[in-house]
Amino acid sequence: MDIKMGIAKAGIKPSGDYDILVLKFKPSVYSVVLTQNSLAAAPVIYDRLIASMQEEISAIVVNSGNANAATGEEGLKNAETMAEIVAENFDIDSQEVMVFSTGIIGVQLPMDKVEKGINEACSNLEPWDLEKSARAIMTTDSFPKYYETTGEIDGKTFTIKGIAKGAGMIHPNMATMLAYIFTDVKIDKQLLDKTTKIVADRSFNSIDVDGCESTNDSFLVVATGESEVEITNENRTYFAKKLLEVATELAKMIVKDGEGATKLIEINIYEAFDKEEAKKVAEAIALSNLFKTAMFGNDPNWGRILSAVGQLHLDIDFNKVKLYLGEFLLYAGEPKDFDREKAVEYLKNNKEVKIELYLGRGDAEWTYYTCDLTYKYVEINAEYTT
Amino acid sequence: MDIKMGIAKAGIKPSGDYDILVLKFKPSVYSVVLTQNSLAAAPVIYDRLIASMQEEISAIVVNSGNANAATGEEGLKNAETMAEIVAENFDIDSQEVMVFSTGIIGVQLPMDKVEKGINEACSNLEPWDLEKSARAIMTTDSFPKYYETTGEIDGKTFTIKGIAKGAGMIHPNMATMLAYIFTDVKIDKQLLDKTTKIVADRSFNSIDVDGCESTNDSFLVVATGESEVEITNENRTYFAKKLLEVATELAKMIVKDGEGATKLIEINIYEAFDKEEAKKVAEAIALSNLFKTAMFGNDPNWGRILSAVGQLHLDIDFNKVKLYLGEFLLYAGEPKDFDREKAVEYLKNNKEVKIELYLGRGDAEWTYYTCDLTYKYVEINAEYTT
Repeated sequence: MDIKMGIAKAGIKPSGDYDILVLKFKPSVYSVVLTQNSLAAAPVIYDRLIASMQEEISAIVVNSGNANAATGEEGLKNAETMAEIVAENFDIDSQEVMVFSTGIIGVQLPMDKVEKGINEACSNLEPWDLEKSARAIMTTDSFPKYYETTGEIDGKTFTIKGIAKGAGMIHPNMATMLAYIFTDVKIDKQLLDKTTKIVADRSFNSIDVDGCESTNDSFLVVATGESEVEITNENRTYFAKKLLEVATELAKMIVKDGEGATKLIEINIYEAFDKEEAKKVAEAIALSNLFKTAMFGNDPNWGRILSAVGQLHLDIDFNKVKLYLGEFLLYAGEPKDFDREKAVEYLKNNKEVKIELYLGRGDAEWTYYTCDLTYKYVEINAEYTT
Repeated sequence: MDIKMGIAKAGIKPSGDYDILVLKFKPSVYSVVLTQNSLAAAPVIYDRLIASMQEEISAIVVNSGNANAATGEEGLKNAETMAEIVAENFDIDSQEVMVFSTGIIGVQLPMDKVEKGINEACSNLEPWDLEKSARAIMTTDSFPKYYETTGEIDGKTFTIKGIAKGAGMIHPNMATMLAYIFTDVKIDKQLLDKTTKIVADRSFNSIDVDGCESTNDSFLVVATGESEVEITNENRTYFAKKLLEVATELAKMIVKDGEGATKLIEINIYEAFDKEEAKKVAEAIALSNLFKTAMFGNDPNWGRILSAVGQLHLDIDFNKVKLYLGEFLLYAGEPKDFDREKAVEYLKNNKEVKIELYLGRGDAEWTYYTCDLTYKYVEINAEYTT
């Protein structure tokens, strides 16, 4: 893929690190999933407008350090200006540029710095470097998040590359999950939209750090069509699987980097009535503070898991329910005798642990990723001002 | 009110403290609100049955230390047996006895101890002592919770007395909110049911410690009719206000005793479209981990409050929204300049703090109580097994 990257240190981040990223590519179909938080940030409002008009885009600009959220008319004007600066540099239509911001809420962007930074980034283009670009969009992230894979259809290879940032809606207002995935397949916008929606639901919409949705969350997929591979109704499942692989790996990195997290917890729901129910049940467990603290304390506390499910008020028959932690059967219609000491050891010795819950109601499945709730989470989120 | 109390140390609680409470009173109309958690405990299932058949009850029995939840058929049999033991002692029908349990989940009750304890409690009746009875139902509570008030209608006095327990759905499986309120007014069951439902919604259903609903939550109101005061459609609002006073004071004690809490936070929503919306918005703030940790950190972080509201995806116009912390106006359509240092001082120096949010959409109101999320909460809930 011929994707060009420009980065700059505009001085928006107090740390002085890279805080502007520009990616330039040939006019390409794209699909974007934006936060539904009704306190949506200015760039999100701007991108929604672009998404409603534009079939193709050819550049994105991201600033980190300031979310441009809760900034009113002036904020909206500034998001638009960011697109215009990029457009001028590349001599393209500003409607071909999508804008993203992440960082503090409620403070206007320092537009002089932003303008200088974007100009600098645009005039120093280099081939897209996944790690460098992932670093430029970091806020409270402790490591850069990127992943790539290839696929093969009819002997022809295609590529999918992605970067992401996010560590929970975290550090007071240093919020936001951002993810950008590029692929070189040929695909029409409608099919890409459909695929992206499903993939987003199974990846970025199936992770949790603290139950808090950001004002700036955005997930963009761009298909440049530079490879020989054309996605059709026949091979779209394979492509979707590959895209899901990239999205899930990025999503898992965000959970692993969850503020204060010591464990990545994979929650698998089986035998649910339908997919919606499976997801709902997984999410209820993933969001339970009692469950999350038990995981931090290496406590195989099945009562907290079932109770979180019971809180959904579904007509689940708990006599048919089976619950595993790793390979330990904790509950099967009634409390089971399990080797408690070994179950505690399992939780202590693994950075990635697994819950499997069988509902005995149907054959739908869902997987959700969450992390534990720790002292460090409270520290990070409480001690910001001191 | 002629209410008799019996308490006993049955040895269900590891601490050896009082763990059986029996209250005996004349056959009285009652109203009960039970948990909707579908993993309902055996006594809750039993009480639901009683509530569907009985117009009046004349005794309750409560054990603390074991929740009799997730205990299957045997658990249900044990709940029934508890009622039968009380009934034999008092020579009444066992269907006149309601049963409540609180404590660890998934362990069968030690019925020999329970039987001995109930027999002992029933044969040593004394006048109802609010504090003693509140202590007998405590689990992880750090103080006994009780409150009483009187009212006057047409020159005649009536009394309302209540006890409660609960400190969040807390200490691994040491769950549950229980509340029992007795009044001596004359009232028919239908009017009492209606009043209790409204009162429960504005009190015990408007508090949060950690978003986790227990398998055993129960709220019982009994009206013995021993006073001269008769509640009618004309004076029911006054009676409801008095009942709400008792319920709210008990509910606030539960939040104050929330695990690890350092602050009671009152969230007032004004100008909502309707009551449902007002409650939903209040709850969204009350449940936000980011908001709760900010309160612990004495951080007047308005972005986290508005973002929690935005997460509801209501079509709120944030240009019309006003937000106060105590007397500080933090946001009014845009970020406001407020004395940040003084706002931090306000949070630091008060054990009870107030949030006021005006939505600019109507005239509905709701009040919700929550507490902050602290290191201690994580400790209590993570370190149980060690």
